[in-house]
Amino acid sequence: MNIHDPNISAPKVTTGALPASRKVYARPDAAPGLRVPVREISLSEAAGEPALPVYDTTGPYTDPDVVIDVEQGLARPRGAWVLERGGVEEYEGRAITAEDNGSVSGKHLARNFPTAHRPLRAAPTPPSPASGGEKEKCITQLEWARAGVITNEMIYIAERENLGRKQMLERANAALADGESFGACVPAFITPEFVRSELARGRAIIPSNINHAELEPMIIGRNFLTKINANIGNSAVTSSVEEEVEKMVWAIRWGADTVMDLSTGRNIHNTREWIIRNAPVPIGTVPIYQALEKVHGDPVKLDWECYKDTLIEQCEQGVDYFTIHAGVRLGYIHLTANRVTGIVSRGGSIMAKWCLSRHKESFLYERFDEICDIMRKYDVSFSLGDGLRPGSIADANDRAQFAELETLGELTRIAWNKGCQVMIEGPGHVPMHKIKINVEKQLKECAEAPFYTLGPLTTDIAPGYDHITSAIGAAMIGWFGTAMLCYVTPKEHLGLPDRDDVKQGVIAYKIAAHAADLAKGHPAAQLRDDALSRARFEFRWVDQFNLSLDPETAREYHDETLPKEAHKVAHFCSMCGPKFCSMKITQDVRDYAATLNDKEQGMAQMSQKFRELGSEVYVDAQAVKESNRSL
Amino acid sequence: MNIHDPNISAPKVTTGALPASRKVYARPDAAPGLRVPVREISLSEAAGEPALPVYDTTGPYTDPDVVIDVEQGLARPRGAWVLERGGVEEYEGRAITAEDNGSVSGKHLARNFPTAHRPLRAAPTPPSPASGGEKEKCITQLEWARAGVITNEMIYIAERENLGRKQMLERANAALADGESFGACVPAFITPEFVRSELARGRAIIPSNINHAELEPMIIGRNFLTKINANIGNSAVTSSVEEEVEKMVWAIRWGADTVMDLSTGRNIHNTREWIIRNAPVPIGTVPIYQALEKVHGDPVKLDWECYKDTLIEQCEQGVDYFTIHAGVRLGYIHLTANRVTGIVSRGGSIMAKWCLSRHKESFLYERFDEICDIMRKYDVSFSLGDGLRPGSIADANDRAQFAELETLGELTRIAWNKGCQVMIEGPGHVPMHKIKINVEKQLKECAEAPFYTLGPLTTDIAPGYDHITSAIGAAMIGWFGTAMLCYVTPKEHLGLPDRDDVKQGVIAYKIAAHAADLAKGHPAAQLRDDALSRARFEFRWVDQFNLSLDPETAREYHDETLPKEAHKVAHFCSMCGPKFCSMKITQDVRDYAATLNDKEQGMAQMSQKFRELGSEVYVDAQAVKESNRSL
Repeated sequence: MNIHDPNISAPKVTTGALPASRKVYARPDAAPGLRVPVREISLSEAAGEPALPVYDTTGPYTDPDVVIDVEQGLARPRGAWVLERGGVEEYEGRAITAEDNGSVSGKHLARNFPTAHRPLRAAPTPPSPASGGEKEKCITQLEWARAGVITNEMIYIAERENLGRKQMLERANAALADGESFGACVPAFITPEFVRSELARGRAIIPSNINHAELEPMIIGRNFLTKINANIGNSAVTSSVEEEVEKMVWAIRWGADTVMDLSTGRNIHNTREWIIRNAPVPIGTVPIYQALEKVHGDPVKLDWECYKDTLIEQCEQGVDYFTIHAGVRLGYIHLTANRVTGIVSRGGSIMAKWCLSRHKESFLYERFDEICDIMRKYDVSFSLGDGLRPGSIADANDRAQFAELETLGELTRIAWNKGCQVMIEGPGHVPMHKIKINVEKQLKECAEAPFYTLGPLTTDIAPGYDHITSAIGAAMIGWFGTAMLCYVTPKEHLGLPDRDDVKQGVIAYKIAAHAADLAKGHPAAQLRDDALSRARFEFRWVDQFNLSLDPETAREYHDETLPKEAHKVAHFCSMCGPKFCSMKITQDVRDYAATLNDKEQGMAQMSQKFRELGSEVYVDAQAVKESNRSL
Repeated sequence: MNIHDPNISAPKVTTGALPASRKVYARPDAAPGLRVPVREISLSEAAGEPALPVYDTTGPYTDPDVVIDVEQGLARPRGAWVLERGGVEEYEGRAITAEDNGSVSGKHLARNFPTAHRPLRAAPTPPSPASGGEKEKCITQLEWARAGVITNEMIYIAERENLGRKQMLERANAALADGESFGACVPAFITPEFVRSELARGRAIIPSNINHAELEPMIIGRNFLTKINANIGNSAVTSSVEEEVEKMVWAIRWGADTVMDLSTGRNIHNTREWIIRNAPVPIGTVPIYQALEKVHGDPVKLDWECYKDTLIEQCEQGVDYFTIHAGVRLGYIHLTANRVTGIVSRGGSIMAKWCLSRHKESFLYERFDEICDIMRKYDVSFSLGDGLRPGSIADANDRAQFAELETLGELTRIAWNKGCQVMIEGPGHVPMHKIKINVEKQLKECAEAPFYTLGPLTTDIAPGYDHITSAIGAAMIGWFGTAMLCYVTPKEHLGLPDRDDVKQGVIAYKIAAHAADLAKGHPAAQLRDDALSRARFEFRWVDQFNLSLDPETAREYHDETLPKEAHKVAHFCSMCGPKFCSMKITQDVRDYAATLNDKEQGMAQMSQKFRELGSEVYVDAQAVKESNRSL
């Protein structure tokens, strides 16, 4: 597969439904024209199990009714929403320059996406010499929310987040979800108004560049489902454009809620264009990576003009959120000198280098107002980067880290005043006992702006398994209130993740996010656990596979020891074998408990019956059930 | 490989040192005759890094000076310790019967271990018609500890646990380990007397059957390093004797502190004999599994005589701890009737079945005194089983689970009065917010007897990844005070673990246990994290691999993207490529920070220098370092 050659077909991506899954679209009452995707997992009808709806990040790639053509990109329904709201103008946009792609040419230049869309931006406010002047139109979701307007994005998200809550409320005898939410307030039911109020409060964001019309909107905030991000990106050493597009599709197939394109090296612009035009999830970037490429990798040569140009370039493309390391101030850099692992954030180290080389305050910090003005025009959300995050257990929660966090709080307020949506990035490497204070401090310093953390890894000693060292920290920090968890793959610290690594990272983080939702007391999170546990208990193997985060692996593992088709309906598993199964005994217990009503006589009968059945019970628990009916 | 046929050589097991590792034996001051194994990882001399000693569970299999011959079994130095202490007698022992191996014969019968060792047991107390009588001799480590006697096992363990603590104390500027121990008290230095006092208090156990002379003693208690257990076992459906012996060796190679043999089906006795005679770690079993085999799988036919016979059989072989589900009382069984997953413990369900079929109280509960008397004679430790543990998130912390735990507290006191060592098994499946109360209740009900938990899994929705769902819970429960974590492999709920699954499970649990030690504030745990992070920061790739829990995988992952030998010394990695490395920038920061002493002039010089070096810095940070010397 090679998209450099125009004669060769576009990159193939993975399509098709997940096992036993059907894409359905919910129609919100408030806006029946919206189509909110839900994945329904069908279960055994014989068991009387209704299909289980689950949150669906996979986009049109799993919809058999959609023809996927990456040359065309996805449909762009959101374009109309933005235009209808008004306040925007279409314009010519910045011309793509050679340096946007690292000045490569000829066969080394990746083809640009075939269709060019003219970008939108906030329309200029008409001049108003008179006092008062004309009020600026709303552009960002934050501005609409503050103005009391419920956007289509908010309605869409309320529907999407509500998944399962109705079923829970309707269940007559459903146990109320318990949990410890540490001050988060996950409501029993999500209304569009609740979404709006959380946005207005700054407690949640909808990363949704007005130029990303392919987007299926989603929300990041601690009173919503915990989200996960997957990083992809080429690098100077390996990887290709084709791989990056498929990596995005692959990552969302397994559950990534957003994807960050961390490409460095050549063809950055064109790679990103292919990704965004085919992305139903928000795309994040770190613009300084591309800016640095434009100055040939020399941080000393970075300047505001180059950076600003890069921001606009990416705003016009439709990037939904930018990591901006504006908290790495000159005065903090020396605080890292005695660290075991110094500065490990790429963006942070670039800015540290810049500040040191000029002995000047960071231009990101000094130009923060102007950055806000640009990002507001396109509703690009801030992901305020933690450039001084700890890179080892030894460096966790040190003064450098927390000094930067305090500055991020200051910047949050500036961005909010400018109408911009903000989330805050967090560590990194943190031992378990130091995790909670990270959330507490972030909530306090940043006035509850959503927290977005990388792991954290809870030990440094397991390279090759850092999806696990960090899933531990991620589950905990998610429980404590982190709104989005940035995944870590098994290759972290060692190499670039391949296809399977991306999947491993995503699954580990889906586990962490779901464990966090359960612990926070999310009212509907346990529906899937319960459905799967019932399937397990009743030996509905296929249902168990299909309800798993990774149905294919679950089935494959089962089939390694019990390969026959008959074993998929077997009332036993390979752990204990057919004669020796604990789950079957509970069926007897239930029958026994039922007899407790009739007390003595019933128990004597049951006791007699068990003796008679003897070991037969292990071969056919059905016999017990049937004989009970005659009691 | 086939040990059924006497003409074929014994099973091969994995031997040889781990990468860059050397087995050394420490000689405790208190008993220089003891040889306490330590694995020393040698590091780059050029970097001035001393070898890092790490806890070594691998036994003689990684000692090049030991000839491994599984037909011979390991050396039995502990036999002399037991005899020297006295109070024991050698005797003929129970004859092995056909039913001990499931009555198989001919080519289906696994060969027994070639050498028979006559078992030891507590010598009978001489009759003492006179008043007062003769006091019983001490047998168990608990009894010796109470008597104020420091055994060789205690000295051995103090040396073993102290690993790294001396180095920490000797480091002039070592940061004091912080942590939150939730009432645990991990001392800065472990003395044999501390070991004794913890044993006497019942807060720790040394599982060490007097007939397991091959044992390298270890301790389980929350004021010591957090331990992990790996389960192995054949089953009616798959697996063979050869695989089980190698599984044990393989599990301890990666760090299992104890191994449970959960075999069911045929050849149980002989398989176990091969394992124990070759095991340097404590071996645990669930005797009721074998007892059930003896009554052809029918729990209704179980009785005290059969169970007692099985206990003695296994005591004589040298099993170090028994899981005994004596807390599954008749009156608790109906409490599981409305659970989503009923009773999931095999032992628990067998006993539930037995109780129901006879409508009688559990014979394990009623005969508990007699069980204690048997186990004391061989110093087999109790692992009081949680037969009613939850098998799903929905069932966590319910009345059935906690009712049993209260009974386990009652049984703990009985066993202690009889002189027996005790630990308590715990769940299972528990969402994060319900984990801590499990530890708190266990500590309270069981008077701080060590807790030994299975995971817990923090969600049910990821079959195929339950080593991860449970590593999250294991790390947390370890932090809160669990002394030993029973591993879960990726095959949990789906199939039998193979060789790689065992490794995956062990590594995931080493991560959890180490993360717990860090969070508890173990004074030396962070040494390895720091050594690895320094190696990472200084691009000592080989050191980073060798310090990892799994050096082979770390190296393999690195080599996938950067295969050349030169890349093992490269000052960059595949994530960022050579031009773009954050770690290198910190070297500049340090130089910069150094100039802050000379203030303005120094900073101006540095600033000038950085400008001059420009992007070269990314190619060769060494240039910066060298130029600094001339400043």
